[in-house]
Amino acid sequence: MPDPLRLGLAGLGTVGIGVVKIVQRHADLIAARGGRPITITAVSARDRTKNRDADLSGYAWESDPVALARRPDVDVFVELMGGEAGGAKASVEAAIAAGKDVVTANKALLAHHGQALAEAAEAAGAAIRFEAAVAGGIPVIKALTEGLAGNEITRVMGVMNGTCNYILTRMESAGLSYDQVFEEARQLGYLEADPTLDVGGIDAGHKLSLLASIAFGTRVSFDKVELEGIERVSIDDIRLAADMGLRIKLLGVAQMTGRGLEQRMSPCLVPVDSPLGQLPGGTNMVVIEGDSVGQVVLRGAGAGQGPTASAVMADVIDLARGTRLSTFGRPAASLVAPVPAKATAPAAHYLRMTLQDKPGALAKIATALGEAGVSINRMRQYGHPDATTAPVLIVTHKTTRDAIDVALKAFAGTGVLASEPVALRIEPV
Amino acid sequence: MPDPLRLGLAGLGTVGIGVVKIVQRHADLIAARGGRPITITAVSARDRTKNRDADLSGYAWESDPVALARRPDVDVFVELMGGEAGGAKASVEAAIAAGKDVVTANKALLAHHGQALAEAAEAAGAAIRFEAAVAGGIPVIKALTEGLAGNEITRVMGVMNGTCNYILTRMESAGLSYDQVFEEARQLGYLEADPTLDVGGIDAGHKLSLLASIAFGTRVSFDKVELEGIERVSIDDIRLAADMGLRIKLLGVAQMTGRGLEQRMSPCLVPVDSPLGQLPGGTNMVVIEGDSVGQVVLRGAGAGQGPTASAVMADVIDLARGTRLSTFGRPAASLVAPVPAKATAPAAHYLRMTLQDKPGALAKIATALGEAGVSINRMRQYGHPDATTAPVLIVTHKTTRDAIDVALKAFAGTGVLASEPVALRIEPV
Repeated sequence: MPDPLRLGLAGLGTVGIGVVKIVQRHADLIAARGGRPITITAVSARDRTKNRDADLSGYAWESDPVALARRPDVDVFVELMGGEAGGAKASVEAAIAAGKDVVTANKALLAHHGQALAEAAEAAGAAIRFEAAVAGGIPVIKALTEGLAGNEITRVMGVMNGTCNYILTRMESAGLSYDQVFEEARQLGYLEADPTLDVGGIDAGHKLSLLASIAFGTRVSFDKVELEGIERVSIDDIRLAADMGLRIKLLGVAQMTGRGLEQRMSPCLVPVDSPLGQLPGGTNMVVIEGDSVGQVVLRGAGAGQGPTASAVMADVIDLARGTRLSTFGRPAASLVAPVPAKATAPAAHYLRMTLQDKPGALAKIATALGEAGVSINRMRQYGHPDATTAPVLIVTHKTTRDAIDVALKAFAGTGVLASEPVALRIEPV
Repeated sequence: MPDPLRLGLAGLGTVGIGVVKIVQRHADLIAARGGRPITITAVSARDRTKNRDADLSGYAWESDPVALARRPDVDVFVELMGGEAGGAKASVEAAIAAGKDVVTANKALLAHHGQALAEAAEAAGAAIRFEAAVAGGIPVIKALTEGLAGNEITRVMGVMNGTCNYILTRMESAGLSYDQVFEEARQLGYLEADPTLDVGGIDAGHKLSLLASIAFGTRVSFDKVELEGIERVSIDDIRLAADMGLRIKLLGVAQMTGRGLEQRMSPCLVPVDSPLGQLPGGTNMVVIEGDSVGQVVLRGAGAGQGPTASAVMADVIDLARGTRLSTFGRPAASLVAPVPAKATAPAAHYLRMTLQDKPGALAKIATALGEAGVSINRMRQYGHPDATTAPVLIVTHKTTRDAIDVALKAFAGTGVLASEPVALRIEPV
């Protein structure tokens, strides 16, 4: 039997303990698949005395993750601490400097420092693997980097934050407001310490920026992701969209257009009966479109101990097998800085507004749309209990966001609006 | 720039020409991702004079695929002829004997000779890759072999024959009989020359046997797959199942149980609103369940020029990158002959029958079920235009197929059946 591949594990939270459990439970299975045993030599975490759900007595303890990364008896440094700076960054850099391969679940670190880390790794002959950083247990980094490598990728989309998907799903099923469900989620422990990371779309935006780099051969550019969270999604829009056969998802879309690279993470509408529209609760889904393959859809658990540890172990087993890939699927030096596209590819849009119920109100709105070059596909005016205002829903034909913004501006000048209009993109899926 | 990886391409049908197109169209992209250029040196097909939708003038021509496989200027032999014997088998064996890596889309060849070929390849230091053999463009072999390698796989399921899924979907949407839609599909060119390969479940059974080998570390055992085609699915069952919120799919299931390895490819019922139930027309879906990851669902085009060529190119690019894996994910010598499990894991079942409309008829059926240990979950008796017989639908609680068979036997002795009962498994998904 060949020498074991020796892991140094920094971070013993939910995912770290998940990795320990798999290494211990499936030692034989993993050795058979990886072609050599996989062992843990040393571990590191903030608090040594904390009671953890695994037997760590066989592993050396390092209080400093940088020291762990440099240990001569560690072949692969597994970083599961999280955070874009601090110990995570320092220890990953130390591991690379020592020529060691790195496996990480840290999307923030790679979204902010991916290019520099990839270049350093290449110079040192080390690999960085990060399947666990995007969409939990779904092998989407592998699908994009390897499984669809013969394709020019045309679009990557995904629902990649289970907490946001839970909140939106629960709002619809229980008919509750955003604030009510947010409070529920907080009490259930579903939210990060800083909930903006989830509900502000930042965590999902990190993931999108990593997928975009692989898909389009561009440098990771998280700062160019147009971010909009779910905080302003109202139960009214969820209900009225449903009435039109649509459902609101926090959807990430990366797309290379003639104008440049679009990256947006924002609440979008998708058909209720599409795979994205059907996605329940905490689940994740990534949709990859390539010129030869068409559309491939991947669905699974986006978080949690087992799924995330499964992704970490896939990377570790690849390294045991001797698989060597560039971090983002091609040499770091060949990745180009993307031209960010400001305007988005045309799409149908959903417009909701409340009009003053007087003759000619709707005509003024319709005229404003026509003058902005926006044509109407479907329109519904709802009954109005107070008889002085009328809720109106419009689904447009394909148009640009720019044209919608022109129309919204014109609406404001009509004097017939009883409330601020809502405009949501209907992503073609 | 390193030396190119040189392909020899045997078979210039739809998929072969698809591979030529990708190699020509995306030469730069592929070289960037694979780390070296990928070129085609020589090709082979039955008829040299046939007009093909690609420029082949730059490639040497071999009339004999075995000679192609042995050419010293070929690094990777790409077998896209198909068929479990004949030129496909001989040329793959020749390539392996010459120490060359093989990429193939040939599920029949591997289902019948996978173990022998894997052993030969290992002895020769060659790799066999077959992403294109299962579920077209969906990178499912990669997901199972690599992306979920840290898991004990508990079940693999899939709808892997687009033609059958098209027929069943079309029967439901158009309300047509099997014979009518079969004739439509024939005229549209959707069927193989021998349609039994599709509608008899053989093609899908080949694919299932390959997935089972990777999932469970067992030797490919196509001869142990319980096969049942879709020929006997009636429009009545499609309609009545829909009434119960269920849909019929030709579903492959491989599962390791205490009794051994179950492999079955048969018409099963799944909930209409499950991912498998939602799968339309010619699309494929594979569901993989692992002890850590839970359930991962993969969906995409299961056939066609672009998708299948995409899978072939993924394997080729992996080889260009230097990725080396055992054929079925672990050394061929370590694969064990599976103990085939005769009985299936318990599940709810759907029973349809027509009873003579006389007092006590339903009681006799209910008694027979009870005596067989089968309990009833839901029962519906429908109106009966002729007033002498009554269609009856029963959904049972979880039970074994053995118990169902005992009950069916007892039904026959009651004297109240007006027609042969239909029993379908409801696969828990």
